[in-house]
Amino acid sequence: MEKRVAFIGLGIMGGHMASRLLEADYPLTIHTRSRAKASKLLGQGAEWADTPAKAAEQADVVFICVTDTPDVEKVVTGEHGVIAAARPGLIVVDHSTISPIATRVMAAALAEKGTTLLDAPVSGGDVGARNGTLSIMVGGESSAFEQVEPLLRRMGTTITYCGKSGAGQTTKLVNQILVSVTNMGVCEALVFARKNGLDLERTIAAVGGGAAGSWQLANLAPKMVAGDFRPGFMVNLQQKDLRIILQVAEESKTSLPAASLVHQLFTAAEAAGHGKEGTQALFKVLEKLASIH
Amino acid sequence: MEKRVAFIGLGIMGGHMASRLLEADYPLTIHTRSRAKASKLLGQGAEWADTPAKAAEQADVVFICVTDTPDVEKVVTGEHGVIAAARPGLIVVDHSTISPIATRVMAAALAEKGTTLLDAPVSGGDVGARNGTLSIMVGGESSAFEQVEPLLRRMGTTITYCGKSGAGQTTKLVNQILVSVTNMGVCEALVFARKNGLDLERTIAAVGGGAAGSWQLANLAPKMVAGDFRPGFMVNLQQKDLRIILQVAEESKTSLPAASLVHQLFTAAEAAGHGKEGTQALFKVLEKLASIH
Repeated sequence: MEKRVAFIGLGIMGGHMASRLLEADYPLTIHTRSRAKASKLLGQGAEWADTPAKAAEQADVVFICVTDTPDVEKVVTGEHGVIAAARPGLIVVDHSTISPIATRVMAAALAEKGTTLLDAPVSGGDVGARNGTLSIMVGGESSAFEQVEPLLRRMGTTITYCGKSGAGQTTKLVNQILVSVTNMGVCEALVFARKNGLDLERTIAAVGGGAAGSWQLANLAPKMVAGDFRPGFMVNLQQKDLRIILQVAEESKTSLPAASLVHQLFTAAEAAGHGKEGTQALFKVLEKLASIH
Repeated sequence: MEKRVAFIGLGIMGGHMASRLLEADYPLTIHTRSRAKASKLLGQGAEWADTPAKAAEQADVVFICVTDTPDVEKVVTGEHGVIAAARPGLIVVDHSTISPIATRVMAAALAEKGTTLLDAPVSGGDVGARNGTLSIMVGGESSAFEQVEPLLRRMGTTITYCGKSGAGQTTKLVNQILVSVTNMGVCEALVFARKNGLDLERTIAAVGGGAAGSWQLANLAPKMVAGDFRPGFMVNLQQKDLRIILQVAEESKTSLPAASLVHQLFTAAEAAGHGKEGTQALFKVLEKLASIH
């Protein structure tokens, strides 16, 4: 029987992801904080639910895509949360990037009612969400993963089962350490290049194809050179992820000197008013440190 | 007329590079500190010179590939150095990675005798040197660059003219900032992953294809997982380059928090006896910081 699906959280990412499920003809119930964001999907045949609990009542699988740990906690275990409709067989899939520690607490609470929580954070941005080319990193019971995998394939191309509850979130945090530290290196290298008189485009071309190459260099360096600081991924969100990384590092007694440093430098970026710009705005902070302006 | 070529410094890199010039039938004179390293090329028809000056006397273009700034200074401006044979039209191409500041001083000294110094550091490792697929970053007079470009094409595939004297070295330093900071992120991310119970190979596969991807992740992370710390690029040499980077940064008043941090962490790697291992040995330092062992 076709699975009935609910989607909670229709921001830039969630809106596209829910839309892809609806296009694949899954019966869809939706809920989001500001109902205005639901209007397009409602016009295409989705059903509205007034609360996360009511959305979950109508569904076999509940997808969640909100911002931070407290947002997911409100949706899952808060008043009128999904947990009020939890029952054996229900599967909850959380696409938000949040704390793996809080994830395991919520998974345990749902498990008492026979409901499985899968953590399934994504990467690939709004373009990946729209085109169904996200990377999805999944933690939790593997039997539940197998049941929802066909639905995940509507949203992403690289679907990885990472291990027990929280492992998807932890893998996403690994991703974010790599992304943020590599970006820090790119920003620093370009500031060094400019300060020492090099032509930046020629420099990127000279070094980009070898051992210095990275996605961050190929994709963000040209934006830095062009002075384009519009967000692909926002400084504020990178900071949220770095806070989770440093919290998990502290709990697990893992010393992260580079991630700590990039968190501090992004704090300077926020202080300078770059919080809602893309992470490539770190370039401007390092440029100021080098007192170019 | 076919250019007569001299090559000074026949280490792992220089040996392969000189060999490629000889294979292309350029008349080759060689000199290196320990003559034993020259025997193979001498057997293939190269001429031996007892000093850099004598090598330069026999050549239209003198290539140098030694280790550090003082080594190049000895070869170029030291006793029996290339400068003793400097004359109008002679071109000296330095493939070593050294200080762009010292480079400009030597270029000025040679220019007084009508000889041009091109700084032309390479990247791509011993494999690139053997196969002629190096990246070569060139600074100095563009007319001299044009004259030697056909010879450089015997040794490398990505040949970039970077600008005036020192610009090749500065571009190589940009490369090394990128390489070392990205590697630091890879090491830290993998230690975080292992400490938090993830399967490392699965984690690399999950994150490697997207915004977290880099040459360092693709090439060094599997070595870290396999416990293979043999040198592709040695910690000691990375440290030499970072010292030059931080010296140039100080001279140019450029603040480099990330490069400073990676230099300090590599100092810990050297203290732990990993100086002659590959740069992926930084993984072991961060693992110790996380007290896994």
